[in-house]
Amino acid sequence: MDTLDLLNSVKDGKITPEEAERILRMKPFIDIGFAKVDTQRDIRKGNTEVIYGAGKTPEQIVEIASVLRKNTEGCVMVTRCASEAAEALSKEFKDGVYHDKARIFTIGSPRTPSENSRVCVITAGTSDIPVAEEAAVTAETLGSRVDRIYDAGVAGLHRLLASADTFLQARAIIVVAGMEGALPSVVGGLVSVPVIAVPTSVGYGASFEGLTALLSMMNSCSSGISVVNIDNGFGAGYIANMIDRRTAPQ
Amino acid sequence: MDTLDLLNSVKDGKITPEEAERILRMKPFIDIGFAKVDTQRDIRKGNTEVIYGAGKTPEQIVEIASVLRKNTEGCVMVTRCASEAAEALSKEFKDGVYHDKARIFTIGSPRTPSENSRVCVITAGTSDIPVAEEAAVTAETLGSRVDRIYDAGVAGLHRLLASADTFLQARAIIVVAGMEGALPSVVGGLVSVPVIAVPTSVGYGASFEGLTALLSMMNSCSSGISVVNIDNGFGAGYIANMIDRRTAPQ
Amino acid sequence: MDTLDLLNSVKDGKITPEEAERILRMKPFIDIGFAKVDTQRDIRKGNTEVIYGAGKTPEQIVEIASVLRKNTEGCVMVTRCASEAAEALSKEFKDGVYHDKARIFTIGSPRTPSENSRVCVITAGTSDIPVAEEAAVTAETLGSRVDRIYDAGVAGLHRLLASADTFLQARAIIVVAGMEGALPSVVGGLVSVPVIAVPTSVGYGASFEGLTALLSMMNSCSSGISVVNIDNGFGAGYIANMIDRRTAPQ
Amino acid sequence: MDTLDLLNSVKDGKITPEEAERILRMKPFIDIGFAKVDTQRDIRKGNTEVIYGAGKTPEQIVEIASVLRKNTEGCVMVTRCASEAAEALSKEFKDGVYHDKARIFTIGSPRTPSENSRVCVITAGTSDIPVAEEAAVTAETLGSRVDRIYDAGVAGLHRLLASADTFLQARAIIVVAGMEGALPSVVGGLVSVPVIAVPTSVGYGASFEGLTALLSMMNSCSSGISVVNIDNGFGAGYIANMIDRRTAPQ
Amino acid sequence: MDTLDLLNSVKDGKITPEEAERILRMKPFIDIGFAKVDTQRDIRKGNTEVIYGAGKTPEQIVEIASVLRKNTEGCVMVTRCASEAAEALSKEFKDGVYHDKARIFTIGSPRTPSENSRVCVITAGTSDIPVAEEAAVTAETLGSRVDRIYDAGVAGLHRLLASADTFLQARAIIVVAGMEGALPSVVGGLVSVPVIAVPTSVGYGASFEGLTALLSMMNSCSSGISVVNIDNGFGAGYIANMIDRRTAPQ
Amino acid sequence: MDTLDLLNSVKDGKITPEEAERILRMKPFIDIGFAKVDTQRDIRKGNTEVIYGAGKTPEQIVEIASVLRKNTEGCVMVTRCASEAAEALSKEFKDGVYHDKARIFTIGSPRTPSENSRVCVITAGTSDIPVAEEAAVTAETLGSRVDRIYDAGVAGLHRLLASADTFLQARAIIVVAGMEGALPSVVGGLVSVPVIAVPTSVGYGASFEGLTALLSMMNSCSSGISVVNIDNGFGAGYIANMIDRRTAPQ
Amino acid sequence: MDTLDLLNSVKDGKITPEEAERILRMKPFIDIGFAKVDTQRDIRKGNTEVIYGAGKTPEQIVEIASVLRKNTEGCVMVTRCASEAAEALSKEFKDGVYHDKARIFTIGSPRTPSENSRVCVITAGTSDIPVAEEAAVTAETLGSRVDRIYDAGVAGLHRLLASADTFLQARAIIVVAGMEGALPSVVGGLVSVPVIAVPTSVGYGASFEGLTALLSMMNSCSSGISVVNIDNGFGAGYIANMIDRRTAPQ
Amino acid sequence: MDTLDLLNSVKDGKITPEEAERILRMKPFIDIGFAKVDTQRDIRKGNTEVIYGAGKTPEQIVEIASVLRKNTEGCVMVTRCASEAAEALSKEFKDGVYHDKARIFTIGSPRTPSENSRVCVITAGTSDIPVAEEAAVTAETLGSRVDRIYDAGVAGLHRLLASADTFLQARAIIVVAGMEGALPSVVGGLVSVPVIAVPTSVGYGASFEGLTALLSMMNSCSSGISVVNIDNGFGAGYIANMIDRRTAPQ
Repeated sequence: MDTLDLLNSVKDGKITPEEAERILRMKPFIDIGFAKVDTQRDIRKGNTEVIYGAGKTPEQIVEIASVLRKNTEGCVMVTRCASEAAEALSKEFKDGVYHDKARIFTIGSPRTPSENSRVCVITAGTSDIPVAEEAAVTAETLGSRVDRIYDAGVAGLHRLLASADTFLQARAIIVVAGMEGALPSVVGGLVSVPVIAVPTSVGYGASFEGLTALLSMMNSCSSGISVVNIDNGFGAGYIANMIDRRTAPQ
Repeated sequence: MDTLDLLNSVKDGKITPEEAERILRMKPFIDIGFAKVDTQRDIRKGNTEVIYGAGKTPEQIVEIASVLRKNTEGCVMVTRCASEAAEALSKEFKDGVYHDKARIFTIGSPRTPSENSRVCVITAGTSDIPVAEEAAVTAETLGSRVDRIYDAGVAGLHRLLASADTFLQARAIIVVAGMEGALPSVVGGLVSVPVIAVPTSVGYGASFEGLTALLSMMNSCSSGISVVNIDNGFGAGYIANMIDRRTAPQ
Repeated sequence: MDTLDLLNSVKDGKITPEEAERILRMKPFIDIGFAKVDTQRDIRKGNTEVIYGAGKTPEQIVEIASVLRKNTEGCVMVTRCASEAAEALSKEFKDGVYHDKARIFTIGSPRTPSENSRVCVITAGTSDIPVAEEAAVTAETLGSRVDRIYDAGVAGLHRLLASADTFLQARAIIVVAGMEGALPSVVGGLVSVPVIAVPTSVGYGASFEGLTALLSMMNSCSSGISVVNIDNGFGAGYIANMIDRRTAPQ
Repeated sequence: MDTLDLLNSVKDGKITPEEAERILRMKPFIDIGFAKVDTQRDIRKGNTEVIYGAGKTPEQIVEIASVLRKNTEGCVMVTRCASEAAEALSKEFKDGVYHDKARIFTIGSPRTPSENSRVCVITAGTSDIPVAEEAAVTAETLGSRVDRIYDAGVAGLHRLLASADTFLQARAIIVVAGMEGALPSVVGGLVSVPVIAVPTSVGYGASFEGLTALLSMMNSCSSGISVVNIDNGFGAGYIANMIDRRTAPQ
Repeated sequence: MDTLDLLNSVKDGKITPEEAERILRMKPFIDIGFAKVDTQRDIRKGNTEVIYGAGKTPEQIVEIASVLRKNTEGCVMVTRCASEAAEALSKEFKDGVYHDKARIFTIGSPRTPSENSRVCVITAGTSDIPVAEEAAVTAETLGSRVDRIYDAGVAGLHRLLASADTFLQARAIIVVAGMEGALPSVVGGLVSVPVIAVPTSVGYGASFEGLTALLSMMNSCSSGISVVNIDNGFGAGYIANMIDRRTAPQ
Repeated sequence: MDTLDLLNSVKDGKITPEEAERILRMKPFIDIGFAKVDTQRDIRKGNTEVIYGAGKTPEQIVEIASVLRKNTEGCVMVTRCASEAAEALSKEFKDGVYHDKARIFTIGSPRTPSENSRVCVITAGTSDIPVAEEAAVTAETLGSRVDRIYDAGVAGLHRLLASADTFLQARAIIVVAGMEGALPSVVGGLVSVPVIAVPTSVGYGASFEGLTALLSMMNSCSSGISVVNIDNGFGAGYIANMIDRRTAPQ
Repeated sequence: MDTLDLLNSVKDGKITPEEAERILRMKPFIDIGFAKVDTQRDIRKGNTEVIYGAGKTPEQIVEIASVLRKNTEGCVMVTRCASEAAEALSKEFKDGVYHDKARIFTIGSPRTPSENSRVCVITAGTSDIPVAEEAAVTAETLGSRVDRIYDAGVAGLHRLLASADTFLQARAIIVVAGMEGALPSVVGGLVSVPVIAVPTSVGYGASFEGLTALLSMMNSCSSGISVVNIDNGFGAGYIANMIDRRTAPQ
Repeated sequence: MDTLDLLNSVKDGKITPEEAERILRMKPFIDIGFAKVDTQRDIRKGNTEVIYGAGKTPEQIVEIASVLRKNTEGCVMVTRCASEAAEALSKEFKDGVYHDKARIFTIGSPRTPSENSRVCVITAGTSDIPVAEEAAVTAETLGSRVDRIYDAGVAGLHRLLASADTFLQARAIIVVAGMEGALPSVVGGLVSVPVIAVPTSVGYGASFEGLTALLSMMNSCSSGISVVNIDNGFGAGYIANMIDRRTAPQ
């Protein structure tokens, strides 16, 4: 019990009350003005803080990445990383890699997957691939082995069924779909592991930039499906990895 | 050419200009104050006017039905017919039949289906059956033979596939689904005839009383699917019958 | 009965169980990584798979088209085909044609229409023409004869009525309208064949990019109307052709 | 110029400054706690204040009506008047009349219409009649002669055209429609006077209790159409009467 | 009675039945392929057809304008006329005028206003002026005298009240406002003539490009207010002119 | 510095580390299973926790009230208190008072207002009074003197202006309005103190149960206006009291 | 490989081709007309089919439950089970239990949880408890040990933090919240296991019956959160159990 | 009493009735055609009129600013001031300052804050800073001392708590957040002063450009929170300053 240890140390005179108070109040982050970099997120969440690149300048991204690099262990990841930010990061970090389809920049080695690790990412169409790649690269960086099944939408159901051997081995499945968002329900009806559904903004007219797919997925008649935000490949990859890493060999 | 015939009759003095004008202007409907009963709809549309029962009193419904019965041929149909209206109609029309699951009242014999007639009505769940029955009874009354496949949603895909022999013989297919509305896309991917999708208000929360299913069906990735209003079984049955009756034996 | 034939062949020793299993599992598609090209869609759906060009690179489109061209019969069609993709396709396929108003690229000859084939495409305004052309070219490519009646909106009803001779001969009618989307209801009240309504994103303010027209068409008081997605000319043309091709001469 | 007259009276000593100030500040309303009854609305608006009955108790309605009756001239009108309130009003005001279809209670004689007065109220269906009656009774009470054309929706266009003689004589036309709300556009294309469109909550599913009709009317392709709130028959009758009363004989 | 005259002429042998039929069927429009120009709109509506420029090419606009110019009397008006279209029109029509703030191009002289004509256009803010100008120029072209009161929103109510002398003389008032759209209610509470409210897309965030203003105006607690589409200055000017031209001197 | 004091006490041996840890972790609430009653909210927020009665049984409300009564000082307040809950509370708490128009039950004396305290609550109409009363009783209970100005909507602006003497003395003003929600903008343009706008669900049709008023208020062109949830009189009264109590005499 | 075995049996003449075909096509469900009971769902999904009680009659529910009881192993569960249905089930199944707060009826023993099983269900308020109970009972029936932390919303953050010892031990956390739905973000920031967020319809006004909470949860800035439908406690409990059962001891 | 004084002057013959009338009617604004500059807003509102720069040309902004500069005291402020407008203003006003992050241009010295003045502006993330700066610069210009706490969102709650010393001293707190908008609820649970919540358009997908954050903040379970429009930093800063300036030292 940390607090108790600390208090016993105070009682025993090993540290002064003033020091104890400082420790109790010490900020587990580094304030750089435009951001408070959370250097202890790994302890709370099991993963280093991930930088959400949208709405930040390349300079801001580089500065936050530098703080994380110096103060944390594990791979630093920047999502929604535009090409200009990727260039700036590449200059600063020689071991950085830009996954352009996924718009993710990683600094440092990805976590090594366990032996039985297996996440499966399925898309309904070709246009859903960028979001799927964001999910796949996120899960891979955080330590999962990933299978990709792309363009297996319900208009040609046999394309999905032909990959059953693959997706039935997964410990968590990510299904990425736009338009009517029907694929997660079909997959969810066939498997016994959690399905994370990702609506995409693929479509036109009454797809309302992904809202229709989102609502559709929310109302799935299959069990075991939960949903993340439109185009949120990162979120899905993160959750799938959480589940994958903690799953016991069956 | 009717108008020309009429004009030639005028020229030939067979009828007076005044009579001709009266004929040209003659109203092809009977005005009963609260309604203008369209007695020539059969000529234009191929079917007798159908009475939409919602928002009308039993007395109004009986009066309109009486006008249609006297002035048109073919079966008179009342949709969205509440039980009180059905009772009032039963008293007035001895040959009337109340299809209670479908909430349709019919007066007179349904049209006889052609030899190859075949419409198929599929539902995703048990709760969708009332809407499906509205569609089925409509199509039957207008002259189609109807197959029903109920509770064949995508959560258990094999239930649908087991009925493939049935739905592959249909000339038009009606798919009725609430919640995420995924079933029409799956059916649409398997068949070569038009699919009429009917969203239902079955579901809760973000199903928004059928809006989610409607939007989902609108965005189907399968070809050959068109959509009618939420819970509009009548509309779907009407269209399916239109297609069925005009289809050549293949 | 294919499966039974196959099993009898196994029993008779004509093919080995291993071969039979391979055939039963054989994927009726060609996987090229970013797409699983559905080479048997013609068998299931009666038409070759159509390539939806939006969200795909010109290279991807050319590659998918090449696979279809080699592995299927019938005309290959690319919808939502931007001019860059059309250029790339033109280089690759010498018999390709770009229908620029419709944004459709076709490779190979359209199917020959039957003698009585007749689809009618009506627009409310001039701005609806591109969507109407997508519908018309789709139906023509798939084997329908198409009549076009453009700019016949309800603000000047006589313009529509003057074309009655034309649209009364159609076996299926496509009505394309933006703004308030009232035209399908008026047409639907005059004809006895299915009307496929296409809302367009034409309008401003509270037209909400076609949503108002879509909702309006959904709620039509005329029978025989079903609706496809906003600006989905392809979908309407596809369905109209389905109906047209199967209709018996009346 | 009232203020100047008053000031001249002050200057001339006819009234004291204190009296003048009191007059300048005098409240042109009577405060009864839960309401400030606007006794000078007739001067500003040309009509006595109308009591909106919804959300008020019968007692409140009677009390407001009494204040208006004593302090204003002209007919007192209560809209959205439930039957309980109508009963309470009937007891209090012997010359009161309850128009039950319109849910309007009037006290005192309606204004006498001018010789050429003519407002026309058209409905698409039978279920729209209550809203149409609210409009008609409002216009009649305020001094218009009203023609009613009910159940003339676009599904049977000839029913509308048969009444052209009537609606072409109107000085202002009110069109009441639910569902897809297409009728105002059709009427608006045929007439040269202002059309006030009233969406109704008639319909189901994607009619969204009148929202679809409202949006549809807003986007009319015909000129000369403006729109009031869903089911707001009163508002439409009020405006039509404003126009009717001020129109010169043509 | 035209039809009767015609029929009597047939009877009297003055014209042949064939000619009579042709006349009865004669299209009161000129079909130029992409448009059916309505050359008799003036007769039905009291004004020449107005060309809605959005979504049409400069060439299409010039061609339609030429047809109208040759076949109708009165000023030809093009709304939503972009500068390129205005240039093309200027070359073709020497007497054309481009009202750039209003984005309206007019060809020919505006109708002369009657002596007592008076329409008032009021805006809430400076940013609403382009929509107000569209309304004002429309009304002026169709024959109204127009007063403009700009930037008189409710945040500084005295600015509106200071112009009361002006707006109290109007026969119809147009109120143009974005953001919360409160101004029509305030104006409507002060005047006895119809108020046409025009919501604008001015604002940000939860103004939803004019939807908030539209809904607000729809729900006005003041009587005598009707609403047109967001940014639809033309529609408001058209209606105000309709009312203004027919109003008798009071 | 409390923590430091505590640690010094540990160091000095005045309390044991175990005791100190208990105090540091002590829960400042009382857990009764279905609720964790926050007995220190007064310290953090300046007011005792308020019980939101909706969705709780009378028994639950009584139990929570009892816990608060025993463990806190100051008046206990239950909002959205239905009459059954009020009865149950009345039996338990002899000094309880039920403010039925406001649907608030208070136990104990309200806080005494300071000498210059002054909050003003204004409504647009009579139907808005229940929400206004919730606001007024909340502010009174928490220690404000409240002026009520009811039925002063913009349709009769003079009714508002006649009360200027009253509302210009307020330190915070609550404006309660449904329908178009225009009143806060008008009030906000006249005063120099914060205006808290409360949209109400009063209205019909496109008022969407208060959404229109909410959006309208959000987009006010006047400065100094912030908004609370639809019908949230409590929230407005709470904030107005916060401001009132802390305002210095001007 | 089952299919291969079967084919080898055909080859070896152990079974006839006809029998083999029957087996290949055998329906893994029992069709009772209004439902196709999925008796093999346990094999595919790891759990017996769950009966969704809403929209089904008590008779239908009893019949489906009977089929499942006879043809599957494991506990049969009925969700959204109204009290009438519960009564009917109680009569039929002596070992049935009705969890009334959760509206779940279970027949048979719940699955025994593993030693380290631990799911935590947290609610923001007291009114969220019914949904939370649906989640908790679902997870318990399917084999999880469940901790409940109720009424720990962000308005009093210390109430949540005081239970950290409990929720930090969970393998999956369900957070149930209405109104603004902020609690999942706060919990998600503190834990390293998946959080399943359940929006509830608790709230009023702009909570839009749970839509606001749903959207809020969708946009969480914390990682590891996915969302199920409004009030879908069952779905959340199902997923949490899936994760819990497969998690290795850490 | 001004009016009384004036009237007494009339009575005493000190000024003529005509002069008195002119004074009574004198416009407290300067009309420059496209704008009516409100030169007495300071008297009514306590602050000089603020120019909203969006939708105005640089020339219009400069002209309005010049009028205000000449006719009012106090600092002139232009919000939503694009860089081109800022350049034009800089040329005209040598003492002008452009706060580029806040997009505000100020002319003249800000008001001096009182000794105890203290407003706190907190953001959830880095991308919210521009809106926060608009709030902060507004409050500073109008006379508040401002503390900034940026990037303290709920995903890392300790970052907020570490700044408690700062925000607990504020007299009014502005919380700026996009995405799920949860931060105001958490802050509101910890403080006893009014919290003004500003939703921002930061986020993607189902954040709907700030609508989700707006709705979330509207439904906060914490007391003392009111909301302004999406991205309306100015409005929040204005209100916070109103409260701050009038607060008594506690």
